[in-house]
Amino acid sequence: MKITKDLYQGSLALLTDFYQLTMAYAYWKSGKGEQEAVFNLFFRKHPFQGGFTLAAGLDYVIDYCSNFRFGKEDIEYLSQMKAPDGSPQFEKGFLEYLSELKFSCDIDAVEEGTVVFPNAPMVRVKGPLIQCQLLETPLLNILNFQSLIATKAARINLAAKGEPVLEFGLRRAQGIDGALAASRAAYIGGCASTSNVMAGKLFGIPVSGTHAHSWIMSFETELEAFEAYADAFPNQCVFLVDTYDTINGIKNAIKVGQALRKKGKEMMGIRIDSGDLAYFSNQARELLDEAGFPEAKIVASNDLDEHIITSLKGQEASINVWGVGTKLVTAFDQPALGAVYKLSAIKTENGIFQPKIKISQQSLKINIPGIHNVKRYYSNDKAVADMIYLENEEINPRGTVIIDPTDPTRRKRIMPAFYQEEDLLKPIFKKGKAVYQSPDIQKIRERAQKQLDSFDKTHKRLVNPHLYPVGLEENLHHLRMELVLQAKKMENGNA
Amino acid sequence: MKITKDLYQGSLALLTDFYQLTMAYAYWKSGKGEQEAVFNLFFRKHPFQGGFTLAAGLDYVIDYCSNFRFGKEDIEYLSQMKAPDGSPQFEKGFLEYLSELKFSCDIDAVEEGTVVFPNAPMVRVKGPLIQCQLLETPLLNILNFQSLIATKAARINLAAKGEPVLEFGLRRAQGIDGALAASRAAYIGGCASTSNVMAGKLFGIPVSGTHAHSWIMSFETELEAFEAYADAFPNQCVFLVDTYDTINGIKNAIKVGQALRKKGKEMMGIRIDSGDLAYFSNQARELLDEAGFPEAKIVASNDLDEHIITSLKGQEASINVWGVGTKLVTAFDQPALGAVYKLSAIKTENGIFQPKIKISQQSLKINIPGIHNVKRYYSNDKAVADMIYLENEEINPRGTVIIDPTDPTRRKRIMPAFYQEEDLLKPIFKKGKAVYQSPDIQKIRERAQKQLDSFDKTHKRLVNPHLYPVGLEENLHHLRMELVLQAKKMENGNA
Repeated sequence: MKITKDLYQGSLALLTDFYQLTMAYAYWKSGKGEQEAVFNLFFRKHPFQGGFTLAAGLDYVIDYCSNFRFGKEDIEYLSQMKAPDGSPQFEKGFLEYLSELKFSCDIDAVEEGTVVFPNAPMVRVKGPLIQCQLLETPLLNILNFQSLIATKAARINLAAKGEPVLEFGLRRAQGIDGALAASRAAYIGGCASTSNVMAGKLFGIPVSGTHAHSWIMSFETELEAFEAYADAFPNQCVFLVDTYDTINGIKNAIKVGQALRKKGKEMMGIRIDSGDLAYFSNQARELLDEAGFPEAKIVASNDLDEHIITSLKGQEASINVWGVGTKLVTAFDQPALGAVYKLSAIKTENGIFQPKIKISQQSLKINIPGIHNVKRYYSNDKAVADMIYLENEEINPRGTVIIDPTDPTRRKRIMPAFYQEEDLLKPIFKKGKAVYQSPDIQKIRERAQKQLDSFDKTHKRLVNPHLYPVGLEENLHHLRMELVLQAKKMENGNA
Repeated sequence: MKITKDLYQGSLALLTDFYQLTMAYAYWKSGKGEQEAVFNLFFRKHPFQGGFTLAAGLDYVIDYCSNFRFGKEDIEYLSQMKAPDGSPQFEKGFLEYLSELKFSCDIDAVEEGTVVFPNAPMVRVKGPLIQCQLLETPLLNILNFQSLIATKAARINLAAKGEPVLEFGLRRAQGIDGALAASRAAYIGGCASTSNVMAGKLFGIPVSGTHAHSWIMSFETELEAFEAYADAFPNQCVFLVDTYDTINGIKNAIKVGQALRKKGKEMMGIRIDSGDLAYFSNQARELLDEAGFPEAKIVASNDLDEHIITSLKGQEASINVWGVGTKLVTAFDQPALGAVYKLSAIKTENGIFQPKIKISQQSLKINIPGIHNVKRYYSNDKAVADMIYLENEEINPRGTVIIDPTDPTRRKRIMPAFYQEEDLLKPIFKKGKAVYQSPDIQKIRERAQKQLDSFDKTHKRLVNPHLYPVGLEENLHHLRMELVLQAKKMENGNA
């Protein structure tokens, strides 16, 4: 799927914040535009008060970067922009520069379906300052949202304990792509299908759906409506039973199921979309079993999320399939992930990358300087810790200490020799050339499941999860402390 | 702006729930596909515990319907779909029917920028059952989201009391169109500009933005960074002062402001993006005033919404311009509006529209039967009540009673002769032909402001608003009651 070709019409280079363009212009004016820099994309806190985040969206990013260019219309739009004093906002030379700009960055990123943690880079962009800045906003837009939804979907699927979760959020999603990208991410996070036919077509994911209340209402009686539906889909009927009276609806579904059976066909089940789902699902199970339909599935929907599903399971509701919409595709209880994109190093005139720090009134907002990768250590296929380290620094194989970036009293000794290890950031682009091919979406979904399986269940607990250890390798920790103190001294000197 | 031409590549007919297609197929099979029906789109509760909702998104809907068609690729996709037993999901004849389908519905809708209320139709679709169904999901997707964001923007602008609110949510928005449509709706709701350059280009709305922390960090010192920025934009500098130390940052901004002034230029202001905004804005105001910059604006950002803005104003923070992102474009505290689309009438064989009811375990979910419009009554340009009425019913000019659809004990007597009145649903399409031309976005924004002005401020209170009276005209109320009782009787008979 190529969003810029199959979905969107042409260039998406203007899908960025205006300040990226004003900075690009000022870099260009000051001769710094081609100076190389390194930026990291990371988030500071798991969403939903959870213990993990599932990365998604990289395939969109790859397409975005591969087709990055300012088209003729983009340049025309920029050329007519005016500064507050009425003069053109941008000089002609800069617009020519933009129109000839070719994407030439290195990008390293975690693969889609990787479980990721706060402060560790999900994406690292290295390249000319202007390009790094222009990419900030679209990368955040894409990865923030798809990772958020993949995580939400994983949580809902954990609650459903292997029972199918059908995503049908299109009608409540935030815009057209807010729906499409959500369907994609929800599938990666473990959902069985989407209701969104266009998402099915674009991404090659299964679609599902049966009928609405309006189908029932367009007939004189519910029974007629069920019969007509069964005529059209004799082998795939899931009857929606709550248009008028749920118990009566179940009985009507059974009547039509019996008629189908006489023709050698079998109804698939029923759906309940309102009322007390625990009560009605148990009533339905009883009636269906009594009538000889123990295999008929009971689908439930109505503002479900991981917590309501957990509660319904706790009450022993007889629900086999979970239809989830609004709460999933909007990530209702926390509709934004809040990932950021921060400069961490810049190449000086002598050709060396200088690590950079941003201090802040809020110490949580201090970034991690330098050029990093993230190592995940495994013991018997179980993840034990993630270490953020300076890529050009050799790790002492006899042992190192990782230090929590937000609480330096939390430390863990790592003996690399005892573990398997994996570098999480993989090369995606080198000097603007794609060196990575996204797996197909089934493979991404399988990877997500395998990744989730590699974490202890206490980290995946939906409420009050056990904290998984992620820390800075000790040399990186020391570098960071040093730069913070330097910056604070410098300020005091300046003040 | 034509989303299907300027933004998306071609047909969006598959942007619908799969069950719309299965129902379409079953309607086609049962010969009911061309039977005419009426559907209403409405919501049940204002978002954000507020007292009003601002309608937005109609221009997208007009474009969607005007370009509604199943393209060759859409049909190919549908033709390869398989039923669970491996047979083709849809018969060839149906796919031919779809490929020749031409949009032919009547659509009546409230104009964008109209203040709307629960239960009253925002859109009414009248046409062949199949088309009505296929449109359900995209109409809900578009109108739910844009109305939600326009409402949020209006609330935030009410809190800002006329001071400019800049929208910069792209990086946290839900997907690409989740950002674009949000920028559009935020502008309609009263925001002064967006940071999203592509939204600026597509919709013709103002864009704004200055620079990020990374600009500062890419220089050796903050002062150098400010100076370089001032070189590029001598007349439009808004310096971000909190990269290292906010107070020191303000002092550096003043230094550069003084240097600019010597060249006959004037800095525009400063921006604070972290820390205690009340404290630092007051410090900044004092320092700027002392240094001779009483006109310099103080821009504040950092997870602002209407409640934080109200609180900062209560604390007499010296903030002149409000930058709002995440909380606005995701409607963070309630990220979905929850509008629904319900069948309310269907044409019987004798050519008469029969009103339809859906009863439910949850009485809130009982729909309003028949074919309605909504009349708004005004007294001296102030809105006093909305009445949902049967369109073919004459209103007694000597007086009628409106009855709250969720609480029949709430009633209000209306004397039409004393009021000005306006029908809110306007014809948009007649038999598939557009009969309405969307105003340009400036006009829509002005309409929204004028609409908001026409409501008493107690209805616009951000917390615990005074309820604006909306009710069913008494004949419609009686029809509804009758049908509910009939349906309940029928059920009992059936059970």
